[in-house]
Amino acid sequence: MELLELFKKRYSCRGFEKREVEQEKIDMIMEAAAVAPTAVNKQPQRILVLRGEELKKVDECTRFGFDAPLNFLICYDKEQSWHRRSDNADHGMIDSAIVHTHMLLMAESLGLGTTWVCAFDEPKARELFNVPDNYVIEGFMPTGYPAAEPSEMHFKRKPVNEIFFDKF
Amino acid sequence: MELLELFKKRYSCRGFEKREVEQEKIDMIMEAAAVAPTAVNKQPQRILVLRGEELKKVDECTRFGFDAPLNFLICYDKEQSWHRRSDNADHGMIDSAIVHTHMLLMAESLGLGTTWVCAFDEPKARELFNVPDNYVIEGFMPTGYPAAEPSEMHFKRKPVNEIFFDKF
Repeated sequence: MELLELFKKRYSCRGFEKREVEQEKIDMIMEAAAVAPTAVNKQPQRILVLRGEELKKVDECTRFGFDAPLNFLICYDKEQSWHRRSDNADHGMIDSAIVHTHMLLMAESLGLGTTWVCAFDEPKARELFNVPDNYVIEGFMPTGYPAAEPSEMHFKRKPVNEIFFDKF
Repeated sequence: MELLELFKKRYSCRGFEKREVEQEKIDMIMEAAAVAPTAVNKQPQRILVLRGEELKKVDECTRFGFDAPLNFLICYDKEQSWHRRSDNADHGMIDSAIVHTHMLLMAESLGLGTTWVCAFDEPKARELFNVPDNYVIEGFMPTGYPAAEPSEMHFKRKPVNEIFFDKF
């Protein structure tokens, strides 16, 4: 099953070649993000494409930029995202994660490595990238051609019966 | 591009055939959930497979069960999920959304329809499914063979330039 192979092969890439990612591949990643489902189709995702000089700012707010030649800052607009009526729970972070997963899988299918970075200094990132007050930052996605092979450690997972149950 | 086609074709299915989903397909959905990346590989996702009599409980806590012959209740264990050191932000909901997206895409690739349901009565769902205090409920995923074709409304999305920017 091809999709399962794609899921299994993707790993958290922490070393990238210096070469640039082609614009056509960036376009594909953007399209994957744009077609993602979001709650009540609100599409609250707002994303920066970071290249060149902008990448230096990434190093100022996280240790996990990994010198990637391309990065994305994934946010959502909390004034646009769907909130559950019963308890006002904001669905925007879930939407952002769906979008981010689409981007990650598309990058993988194009032969690119990615890391999902949520360890960053939030106030610093907000200041550096001029993120509006009504935007919530979900994370970064360093992207590029992998410079090395993954280790087996990257693929260690719990068996299905430690995750799925018929009853709690 | 095959993956993009899969992303584009998937929609929120609100009507299902009565026929059961084959166990082999359920197994594939479970495997897709188990191989999903989670922050620091903590794998905090805990998921119920709901069939038969259990499905009646879904109708008691959400109007969006859509009489699906199969459903999943997706939770995470907040005592297991990774929390960002700088501000203690809990990554578990993002992890759950990654897992849920994997399940959704796998189901789609197997010819099954799904809906992502986050509109539910949280305290009621917790009580009905005996969800432990340390588990956070992310949502339900009604799953089955689609009973009708989607409408065009299901595929309406913003253009890429309303989502991606070089600077805010």
